[in-house]
Amino acid sequence: MKIQRFFPPRRILMGPGPSDISSDVLQALSRPTIGHLDPLFIGMMDEVKALLKYAFQTDNDFTIPVSAPGSAGMEACFVNLTEAGDKVIVCRNGVFGERMRENALRSGAEVILVDDEWGQPVSISKVESAFKANPDTKILAFVHAETSTGALSDAEALSKVAKHYGALTIVDAVTSLGGVPLKVDEWNLDAVYSGSQKCLSCVPGLSPITFSPKAIEKIQARKTPIQSWFLDQSLVLGYWSGEGKRSYHHTAPVNSLYALHEALLALYEEGLESAWQRHAEMHQRLKLGLEQLGFRYVVEEAHRLPQLNSVYLPEGVNDADTRQHLLKEYNLEVGGGLGALAGKVWRIGLMGYSAKKENVALCLKALEDTIK
Amino acid sequence: MKIQRFFPPRRILMGPGPSDISSDVLQALSRPTIGHLDPLFIGMMDEVKALLKYAFQTDNDFTIPVSAPGSAGMEACFVNLTEAGDKVIVCRNGVFGERMRENALRSGAEVILVDDEWGQPVSISKVESAFKANPDTKILAFVHAETSTGALSDAEALSKVAKHYGALTIVDAVTSLGGVPLKVDEWNLDAVYSGSQKCLSCVPGLSPITFSPKAIEKIQARKTPIQSWFLDQSLVLGYWSGEGKRSYHHTAPVNSLYALHEALLALYEEGLESAWQRHAEMHQRLKLGLEQLGFRYVVEEAHRLPQLNSVYLPEGVNDADTRQHLLKEYNLEVGGGLGALAGKVWRIGLMGYSAKKENVALCLKALEDTIK
Repeated sequence: MKIQRFFPPRRILMGPGPSDISSDVLQALSRPTIGHLDPLFIGMMDEVKALLKYAFQTDNDFTIPVSAPGSAGMEACFVNLTEAGDKVIVCRNGVFGERMRENALRSGAEVILVDDEWGQPVSISKVESAFKANPDTKILAFVHAETSTGALSDAEALSKVAKHYGALTIVDAVTSLGGVPLKVDEWNLDAVYSGSQKCLSCVPGLSPITFSPKAIEKIQARKTPIQSWFLDQSLVLGYWSGEGKRSYHHTAPVNSLYALHEALLALYEEGLESAWQRHAEMHQRLKLGLEQLGFRYVVEEAHRLPQLNSVYLPEGVNDADTRQHLLKEYNLEVGGGLGALAGKVWRIGLMGYSAKKENVALCLKALEDTIK
Repeated sequence: MKIQRFFPPRRILMGPGPSDISSDVLQALSRPTIGHLDPLFIGMMDEVKALLKYAFQTDNDFTIPVSAPGSAGMEACFVNLTEAGDKVIVCRNGVFGERMRENALRSGAEVILVDDEWGQPVSISKVESAFKANPDTKILAFVHAETSTGALSDAEALSKVAKHYGALTIVDAVTSLGGVPLKVDEWNLDAVYSGSQKCLSCVPGLSPITFSPKAIEKIQARKTPIQSWFLDQSLVLGYWSGEGKRSYHHTAPVNSLYALHEALLALYEEGLESAWQRHAEMHQRLKLGLEQLGFRYVVEEAHRLPQLNSVYLPEGVNDADTRQHLLKEYNLEVGGGLGALAGKVWRIGLMGYSAKKENVALCLKALEDTIK
């Protein structure tokens, strides 16, 4: 067996995530590992929690990173909040809505589906109708920013409907956190999960989550045990809780948390509003150029995510070949379509540290050179 | 909110994990992030699989790192292999046997417990009796190297009993992999999980697992869906499988996998037998010194793990104060006791890169200075 050390090239990451990572964050990642119960590490964990609260715009005590990717954060929300037989309205307007349905079913929920076309935001009126037909619904689950299509849904309005019916919300904010406004407390959201590798521009592998006091109440009132041991947040809380002695649950991914600390600090120092503004501006630049090159957006302007530009390929442009060419010749990664949109669209990311002028310029010029 | 960048000190990690990490592995960790579907990354994944097969001494096709800590690897084994009502014999001789019981129960298993005293290896004859009383048992679950006590159980003999009754085995090799002989194919083990942060000396957050063809058969013959979406290995396989196109399941923790690649390569270059030998030799050195200082081993010599020295504190030595002193004055971390052994024992690790003469020397001298 002949295996060499692995030296990856420096790619420009303009797909649906992971996004570009700053050298500050990569440096933080490689600092010496210390114990997961080291007092200095515990202190850093408290700072990560505080920074995450800022990023989520919440005072929720339970705001932590799950030690696994966003899909595990999604599952943590469902297995903790759902009990067998609970009615859950799941909004499906892309791949991640479908994944929510899978998770709800595996948690034993009775799922009521609200379908919207891919590329459309979740329809408020359809959700209202679903609640009218099922007023005993316990949870409304929807994706804030659909990574598969680039559509932004109105989380605030959806939350209002859920609250009107006394239901909790589970919200996928994997792609929205840090890229567009997300206001957990002001919008009254209950269980929100995200990912480290999108607009936070941290390494992939962590899933920030936040649970409202109402979500915690629902967990504490459970009649049945949580089916996952690893994702049982009542156990995890003993490790992340600020009071007294930290109890061991699992070994935290120490170095990845250094990186998250650094990435969240950068976001805090820039300021959320500035970060949102930057994403919007870079999107405008990219959009102008893409349209000139013949790309057409999948999502209407009003519901378009600045950080994920989902565009139909101009006629005559081959999907896989062109992406491979961009990767080989320019070290530029753009994303292909997922599910029903595979082969038809590209997903061009402007997430976090990737949302900058040099990336937009490179992307547009490389595309121009390649497809003309 | 005033938060500074976090600069951890360089600790000497001689607890139960994480262990010391070489600068090569830390450097690999901080290499530029590339996409999780990048062809270069896919190539590296194949190498990680090959290196893991070597470390596990197996030809199992299904040999991959779960994108989460060892506890998630444990859960992956239980939720994939167990169906509601399956009889599972769980051997409990420490914290992690108890955690296996929790996982088996949450997977819907009917658990038959085989208890041994903490510090003892799993009793083969008790397991035989449990099988005699329950010949329809589907799975035998045991911990190869109990991290909470430092006891090594005879995985080969236990596997023979299970095979005699046609049962599969789930084996916790979190602390054994790379530190003591573990021969998955020769011993006929079916589902084995480990952790990245013990004798592999990689960053915490990954859990290498391997499933035998018989384990895969059991998964494919399931009548009920796997309760976890994130840990559903039939879905994960589509991403890690060598054939054709990789399908997206979740975003792999790219940088942590660079580090695992590097750590596994170091183990391969040293050779497993040499690594086992090194652990044994460092253990002998440490043992002599510890006994001179008045420490007494929890586990009898025949069943003792070289990489995890579980010792009773000499009289008059305060647990928490002394460990804090070692950390503050010498940057030396040793582990406290877990569960029933908390406050009474220390767990001194000699895992992977930590198993070297300078660590043994430092540890013994620092202890001598501190407790005399």
